[in-house]
Amino acid sequence: MSGLRVAIVGGTGYGGMELVRWLLGHPEATITAITSRSETGAVGDVHPHLRGLTDLRFTADRAVDLARTNDLLFFATPHGVARKEVPAVLEASPTVKVIDLSNDWRLDALTSPDAWAARHDEPIPDWLPFAAYGLPECGGRAEVRRPGCRLVANPGCHASAAILALHPLARSGLWQGRPRPAVVSVTGSSGSGATPSQGTHHPERFSNFRAYKPLEHQHQREIEVVLATFGGAHGPVVDFVPCSGPFSRGIGSTTILDLGERLVRGTGDTAETLEEGEALELVRAAFRTAYATEPFVRLVPETPEVRAVAYTNLADVGVTVRAGSVCVTVAIDNLGKGMAGTAVQNMNLLFGLDETLGLRRAGAGL
Amino acid sequence: MSGLRVAIVGGTGYGGMELVRWLLGHPEATITAITSRSETGAVGDVHPHLRGLTDLRFTADRAVDLARTNDLLFFATPHGVARKEVPAVLEASPTVKVIDLSNDWRLDALTSPDAWAARHDEPIPDWLPFAAYGLPECGGRAEVRRPGCRLVANPGCHASAAILALHPLARSGLWQGRPRPAVVSVTGSSGSGATPSQGTHHPERFSNFRAYKPLEHQHQREIEVVLATFGGAHGPVVDFVPCSGPFSRGIGSTTILDLGERLVRGTGDTAETLEEGEALELVRAAFRTAYATEPFVRLVPETPEVRAVAYTNLADVGVTVRAGSVCVTVAIDNLGKGMAGTAVQNMNLLFGLDETLGLRRAGAGL
Amino acid sequence: MSGLRVAIVGGTGYGGMELVRWLLGHPEATITAITSRSETGAVGDVHPHLRGLTDLRFTADRAVDLARTNDLLFFATPHGVARKEVPAVLEASPTVKVIDLSNDWRLDALTSPDAWAARHDEPIPDWLPFAAYGLPECGGRAEVRRPGCRLVANPGCHASAAILALHPLARSGLWQGRPRPAVVSVTGSSGSGATPSQGTHHPERFSNFRAYKPLEHQHQREIEVVLATFGGAHGPVVDFVPCSGPFSRGIGSTTILDLGERLVRGTGDTAETLEEGEALELVRAAFRTAYATEPFVRLVPETPEVRAVAYTNLADVGVTVRAGSVCVTVAIDNLGKGMAGTAVQNMNLLFGLDETLGLRRAGAGL
Amino acid sequence: MSGLRVAIVGGTGYGGMELVRWLLGHPEATITAITSRSETGAVGDVHPHLRGLTDLRFTADRAVDLARTNDLLFFATPHGVARKEVPAVLEASPTVKVIDLSNDWRLDALTSPDAWAARHDEPIPDWLPFAAYGLPECGGRAEVRRPGCRLVANPGCHASAAILALHPLARSGLWQGRPRPAVVSVTGSSGSGATPSQGTHHPERFSNFRAYKPLEHQHQREIEVVLATFGGAHGPVVDFVPCSGPFSRGIGSTTILDLGERLVRGTGDTAETLEEGEALELVRAAFRTAYATEPFVRLVPETPEVRAVAYTNLADVGVTVRAGSVCVTVAIDNLGKGMAGTAVQNMNLLFGLDETLGLRRAGAGL
Repeated sequence: MSGLRVAIVGGTGYGGMELVRWLLGHPEATITAITSRSETGAVGDVHPHLRGLTDLRFTADRAVDLARTNDLLFFATPHGVARKEVPAVLEASPTVKVIDLSNDWRLDALTSPDAWAARHDEPIPDWLPFAAYGLPECGGRAEVRRPGCRLVANPGCHASAAILALHPLARSGLWQGRPRPAVVSVTGSSGSGATPSQGTHHPERFSNFRAYKPLEHQHQREIEVVLATFGGAHGPVVDFVPCSGPFSRGIGSTTILDLGERLVRGTGDTAETLEEGEALELVRAAFRTAYATEPFVRLVPETPEVRAVAYTNLADVGVTVRAGSVCVTVAIDNLGKGMAGTAVQNMNLLFGLDETLGLRRAGAGL
Repeated sequence: MSGLRVAIVGGTGYGGMELVRWLLGHPEATITAITSRSETGAVGDVHPHLRGLTDLRFTADRAVDLARTNDLLFFATPHGVARKEVPAVLEASPTVKVIDLSNDWRLDALTSPDAWAARHDEPIPDWLPFAAYGLPECGGRAEVRRPGCRLVANPGCHASAAILALHPLARSGLWQGRPRPAVVSVTGSSGSGATPSQGTHHPERFSNFRAYKPLEHQHQREIEVVLATFGGAHGPVVDFVPCSGPFSRGIGSTTILDLGERLVRGTGDTAETLEEGEALELVRAAFRTAYATEPFVRLVPETPEVRAVAYTNLADVGVTVRAGSVCVTVAIDNLGKGMAGTAVQNMNLLFGLDETLGLRRAGAGL
Repeated sequence: MSGLRVAIVGGTGYGGMELVRWLLGHPEATITAITSRSETGAVGDVHPHLRGLTDLRFTADRAVDLARTNDLLFFATPHGVARKEVPAVLEASPTVKVIDLSNDWRLDALTSPDAWAARHDEPIPDWLPFAAYGLPECGGRAEVRRPGCRLVANPGCHASAAILALHPLARSGLWQGRPRPAVVSVTGSSGSGATPSQGTHHPERFSNFRAYKPLEHQHQREIEVVLATFGGAHGPVVDFVPCSGPFSRGIGSTTILDLGERLVRGTGDTAETLEEGEALELVRAAFRTAYATEPFVRLVPETPEVRAVAYTNLADVGVTVRAGSVCVTVAIDNLGKGMAGTAVQNMNLLFGLDETLGLRRAGAGL
Repeated sequence: MSGLRVAIVGGTGYGGMELVRWLLGHPEATITAITSRSETGAVGDVHPHLRGLTDLRFTADRAVDLARTNDLLFFATPHGVARKEVPAVLEASPTVKVIDLSNDWRLDALTSPDAWAARHDEPIPDWLPFAAYGLPECGGRAEVRRPGCRLVANPGCHASAAILALHPLARSGLWQGRPRPAVVSVTGSSGSGATPSQGTHHPERFSNFRAYKPLEHQHQREIEVVLATFGGAHGPVVDFVPCSGPFSRGIGSTTILDLGERLVRGTGDTAETLEEGEALELVRAAFRTAYATEPFVRLVPETPEVRAVAYTNLADVGVTVRAGSVCVTVAIDNLGKGMAGTAVQNMNLLFGLDETLGLRRAGAGL
């Protein structure tokens, strides 16, 4: 066994399952344990595609015990578990690090430790000020690499797509929080996790399409806070509507933003409205600036397709401008760039490895 | 043979195919002919679900000849055909009427005959001033019922969904053209028609999602003109992005609109911002006013689902309000309410029949 | 309210749901009640496609009470319920009749009352000798029409497809039970019912295919007994393998049978092997004889498609012969001809109505 | 550039596309060229998932020219091209080797050079006696490794699945060609290739299922000849029915075989029929013997699932026995083990590399 010793806390869900796939092909990490509260057999019995590819069996190890014998713990647990267990894990060993795939630590990682202190009696833990919101392409790279960073909150899937669409506009100053962007983000059913429910019942999902939690999904606030924290947007409000599509993997996200008066040449009284082609070039330049050196973001000439990014850590991004409005379309794999892919990218960053290690695989296209 | 004699010009595509399904179950209409330029055999040989349910065979009849022996011609031809053939058809018989499923006559039906005259040398035909844009729920009912109406331009599928979402807001005065609504409209593959292409190639469409023609689809202008004509909106601009989903039938449309300052009580200086619940009630009231007596629109408590309207002429509509923004979600069958269902509804209106005749069928739900 | 009064016992599953769809369009039947153990609201709240099309609400009525006020009870309950409740229902009223969609009464309806008596202490009920296995196309029509018939066991979905493939061969004498036919029957996910489970979890079913219960599914025996009872096959053994396909509705069934020595001209020593074309003609003649006058069976020239029968009560059947082997392919809708469609057909037969009443609708083709 | 220099002749189809995916991750092979008759741009423009992962552009190079500068040419061309071009390629360089994914050379590779000579005027080329039918798990490994082997005919996808199901039974002597096995093999739409057609038109394929070419598909003969050549079966006849399923990738194959009298203990007059459990053990032993050391075949306890092998070179195999009949179910990816995966495995064998190099990747499971 060489390199990093990593354990997965909660391996029966799709997050844990997908981590195993990525980590089995990673040259510098070895999975030492994968826990489950419900399963005890071989990993391949629960995830049949992994049969024969790993000897791992689910264990009932406690996270605090795994902390003492591993370099890194991935929490791939239902929302609420990492909230409770992570502090004890980070105390159990002075060196162990955590990447949490749930939404438990995202807002804490984004806001100041004071916000946390206001809600708790205990003193602020040492590691909290270094907790990072781990979207490498939007501030996360620097955060995760900071000495002292021991906890990475992995971004939400819808949030990742929306932030990738809006961050370059905010960062370039073309958009500073007003007007409200409209984001419609269509996800495959794997986003609902491994537990069957009516919304993922095949006969009813098969040929269906519907919005859910319009304007009130929890990722909306995540998007807004990230854009304010890293993008320079001032109190942005995003109108966010997630939708359920009849496919398994992937998110296709459409962001529409009326930039009207900002697509100008010059400032103040002498500002001139740009022609369409110039406006498009201005917006594209913002995206090129943001993503030219990003290893996992591809600016595509037309509109991105989910099939081109499925099973990868890639995000494809397309930009259109018409009559002052900007449309940014993004395609990611919700379990890849939207979850486990970024988590492995964060692992690489957290331990000073080449950021792309184990992640430069071609998808399958269909 | 009883009741109306109707012919379908262009029966190999999905519009013609779907018309046959509806008309076979219609108590007052009989299909006398169905034409095709490519097929000559039984309808059931091309559309295997119709085998044994009709003796119809494709014919090479010219539309002008059918005009003399039928009460109604449906044009279910590719864009461009009806443009050329309809004038001669309406001249060939003083009584025959036409419902055109293509986009050939929509803008003519919406704009004044003068607009037409400006582009043509010939005099304005008698029937042109009575041509109707046939979305019954948005002005079309009255237009189609006008004595003299002999040509109905059937609405586009995306346009139908978007107009159903925005028309009540325009009509109620809550929205008058500004700000720009963002409309993301996800369609099944049957919207691309019966001819195979790369975009509908199953291996590539199966697990895919993508936007296409963002902000530049031809239905955008159709939406804007209809809202201006019938909704009272002043020069509305709609940011419209159609998307391709991996299902066959249906459209799930999401419209987001920042009504901010309009969701108030009182006017002018004394205007008070409404609480969320009040704002929602105000918006819902606008939709109830618009649709309370509509036989084919259902206001649903949550978000509508495509599976609930597939194979029907129904439109399900849901409304949400948050922080001043309104989200309207609409589900229709692109070949039903988005095409042939509305076409049959227009036939009923055009001939003074009960508007719902032949159309009150339950869908299948899955 | 006119015509038959019918109640549906168990209306939250797909069987009950689909019955409502068919019965709402039936000119001679009215649904008086639909019961549920779990739901109490409007039918349209559980089955959103039915919203606004019926005022029915789920009730907690006991079946024995419904028996006294209805002409017919459909049991669309989980397996095991009808077994217990039907005897009391048939005693509660001397005229009420029952059609059971579960598998509870199928073998009783197929075998002699003595078989039942051997397993029970009570005397044989009056109605038992008249209980019918209701596959109209294979003996069921006559059985259901017999005076005295008050209980119809509706056939299983896989069984229906397989029997339709084999019955003409048995009846014609071309096959009499040997050799074993191989039947591979691929079903959509709606065959698993309305309750979510791992096997119908969309992310895992979406792009999947697998056989289940190979050679040990309960429909295998149903097929064998029906063929022995109505087809004249002697102790037939069928190798039956059901499979789960990634679609919602429909069954595509493939039956392969090596008839080798039976595809001959003449008998005994003078028998001559037929040429391929002659053999095919001989086999096709058997199917024409069986199905020429059947209103819901279509012999198709090539291979049948599920999409051509979805949402209908039709069965499409294709036949091929090569080198002595026969391949019969059948397509049905598992909830149509495989369940509720046949149930309504049985209702028509049971009450002396035109057998096709309410059932001659065109499917949608896609 | 290190290791093998390989070129792909015909890279716009799915075979070529999938080869690129596998070869980009292969440590010992480098793609030097990829040709196309229709495309001239970057590979990523045609196959959007490959954008940014390779700098390759389509070329118009002639195969004979590529022969002189490469170690290996993959032919991923439509049927008929390799037939014409391969002889010249193998003559153009004394060392270049060819793996042909089409069906052009399969029967030649299986039958004796005399069979070829009988159909041609030219003398038998030197390389022909060494041409191999490259299914490693069924004779192909030894064939491909023979010194002198320069041409590998890659197996058909349906044929691969069927042969993997039947070969162990033939090799063990449990089945020697009689009775006829029934094979029903359900394929995803990618099996039809990259060119759109009616059968892969999404609206019509989406919720469909149908058999095609029942008992007359070209793979039937391929299966029979392979089983006779490598399995020891005597003149086997297989009743083979391929079906089209509504998914993109994968084959689920079901083989049913009435072994009746062969599942015995002892021989001749003293033979005793085995109990079910014993019979199952006997059959399973045959599969264990065949596959225990195969790196890409997994014997699974229940029935295999397509989702567990998608995107891999794995074949999952399940076995059931009941009443003398054996059911073998196989799942493969039609583009993986059914095409490009096996092709890369053959490349490894052909050049003396570790057979599993570049191929031991976990699939994604959903």
